[in-house]
Amino acid sequence: MKLEDIIKAIEPADQTMIQQAREHTSRLVMPHRALGELHLIGERVCGIQRTMEPSVKNKAVLVMAGDHGIAAQGVSAYPQEVTGEMVKTFIRGGAGINVVARQTGIRVLVVDMGIIPDTSDLSAGAAARTARISEENALIVKKVARGTNDFTRGPAMTLEQAEQSVMAGCEAATDLFEQGVELLGTGDMGIGNTSPSSAIGAVITGHPVERMTGRGTGVDDEAFARKCQAIQKGIDINAPDPKDPLDVLSKVGGFEIGGIAGAVLAAARFQRPVVIDGLISTAGALLAHAMSPVLSDYMFAGHRSVEQGHQLMLDHMRLRPILDLGMRLGEGTGAALAMHLIDAGVRVFLEVLTFEQAGVSKGTA
Amino acid sequence: MKLEDIIKAIEPADQTMIQQAREHTSRLVMPHRALGELHLIGERVCGIQRTMEPSVKNKAVLVMAGDHGIAAQGVSAYPQEVTGEMVKTFIRGGAGINVVARQTGIRVLVVDMGIIPDTSDLSAGAAARTARISEENALIVKKVARGTNDFTRGPAMTLEQAEQSVMAGCEAATDLFEQGVELLGTGDMGIGNTSPSSAIGAVITGHPVERMTGRGTGVDDEAFARKCQAIQKGIDINAPDPKDPLDVLSKVGGFEIGGIAGAVLAAARFQRPVVIDGLISTAGALLAHAMSPVLSDYMFAGHRSVEQGHQLMLDHMRLRPILDLGMRLGEGTGAALAMHLIDAGVRVFLEVLTFEQAGVSKGTA
Repeated sequence: MKLEDIIKAIEPADQTMIQQAREHTSRLVMPHRALGELHLIGERVCGIQRTMEPSVKNKAVLVMAGDHGIAAQGVSAYPQEVTGEMVKTFIRGGAGINVVARQTGIRVLVVDMGIIPDTSDLSAGAAARTARISEENALIVKKVARGTNDFTRGPAMTLEQAEQSVMAGCEAATDLFEQGVELLGTGDMGIGNTSPSSAIGAVITGHPVERMTGRGTGVDDEAFARKCQAIQKGIDINAPDPKDPLDVLSKVGGFEIGGIAGAVLAAARFQRPVVIDGLISTAGALLAHAMSPVLSDYMFAGHRSVEQGHQLMLDHMRLRPILDLGMRLGEGTGAALAMHLIDAGVRVFLEVLTFEQAGVSKGTA
Repeated sequence: MKLEDIIKAIEPADQTMIQQAREHTSRLVMPHRALGELHLIGERVCGIQRTMEPSVKNKAVLVMAGDHGIAAQGVSAYPQEVTGEMVKTFIRGGAGINVVARQTGIRVLVVDMGIIPDTSDLSAGAAARTARISEENALIVKKVARGTNDFTRGPAMTLEQAEQSVMAGCEAATDLFEQGVELLGTGDMGIGNTSPSSAIGAVITGHPVERMTGRGTGVDDEAFARKCQAIQKGIDINAPDPKDPLDVLSKVGGFEIGGIAGAVLAAARFQRPVVIDGLISTAGALLAHAMSPVLSDYMFAGHRSVEQGHQLMLDHMRLRPILDLGMRLGEGTGAALAMHLIDAGVRVFLEVLTFEQAGVSKGTA
């Protein structure tokens, strides 16, 4: 299936089902909508899955990894090697995302969308032969290239690579949905990847670079100024077209960001809810949203990152973050934590008795 | 043990242990403190439990139930019978708290602190004989009286009853801690109980009644004005002493609110974290805090209720709510949902590898 056909096939969530779900909520044995956002969540899942018996038991997070030419500009506090080292840590099960995913029984799948090191020795077959590598934390290799180009000197990637990264992310998510995944989370790993994310945010939303840019993993004042300048330079010399998300991705994006956009598209195509993580995931979601604004119907914003551009991106898509815990890790941690609350919303919808079932007197509220 | 001895025996959390825990967090394979509040949570649990190997696996919520004479003033949108009907629903496992607690493996124990109906036929022995009543949702009978008096006409209860309710809540929690509970949540049920909670909040914090009072389960404008007037009248005619929490409880409180105060005291005595739910639970916590301000060290605020007085109470105790989901149900639902994130904070602390263990290069952040 071609990208344009996937986009065309996407339909909005079922508003009639959402209305029907709201009517059920009003009968639950509690004051009217007393669990606030949890009701909205449960009802949205009904509308997305087209059922009054929603299910989000089978959960997975795709951690999309990529390297970035822009890292050469000193925009990160960490050396570029860390991308590959963290991919190994994910497969070993020892990173933040592994811990919070394990708590909720969420599968973690790492996707090499385009990191510099070779990962063929880390992929599924190799993993199964190595006792310390858990099969549950599998690696999927979809390497578009060994890192992007430095976008302060020209486009980050070709237009073909941009489309390839979106399609690869879409395929990775499609495989999961075909295996029965009912709730997908997005995650990212890539040293330097807050820079392309802020660039995408600035281009798509129209907000200035300084408002869209944060401190990433923790750079100082001087490095922050350098980061803003590098992002602005990348936008100026490449002149991405805000109306053409693939153009934006190719000029100032990253392979894992394209992969995340593809995963979001796949979720809408399969009518499954997708939980977006922080700044980088939301930049990917923003690209997908620019392809089809209807995609907001399928997205949950897992949390509000401390990265200042994040809220502006969420506002653009009219998404309200579920959690606000001062986090800025990425990896899909905010998405994984929020999945517990999405599950809670679905359970409340399905399991709380009605006034009638419970034999409790109705009030006037 | 007498109440005054329990209060005297309470010590602050161990700040040296918290500092040691912070040092461990700084070694985790992620940018410095990138999981924000989750780190603070994990470190606080270390300080509370006096260990670098904290554990919150064994969890329970005490749902304290009581009836209120003030209900006769038309302050609630529900008839008073609902208190007893909801207690039955809790035992049956069909209410909001049951659903969200089940999701995380949290035991729910309902305490009859003083509801009007007789509950002897619902207690543990009877429950075991009734197939539809789950043994996991046990009822503990600590009935102080069959509802409080209407505090617009005099004290809600005697001073002896106030102390009895605190001690009963303390005993109920003590039993759980002695059975191995590592993380306790507080919950409430009682038609009309936002009124005594707002009254307690106004007296203890000094904020005016109008700022402390919300719509409860959903009263209209006229009923809201009536509710504020009733609360103000109760404070005026009873003149509770803000410096004497038992006096405040006896004059404008409720049996379940006293029970919650007692449960918080027990948590501090047993050096276990306690998660406070919404307005009513926080009124109980506020009374306990007035007995010993050190109790803040042991409390987590589960969520921010839409009840407007709630935030003012939390501010008074310098607590930051973990969740903010527009909820206003009570029952312990906000506490139960937040327990997942407290558990996450502890797991991140214990399970995420260090940079050294993971073999990942350190940055400058």
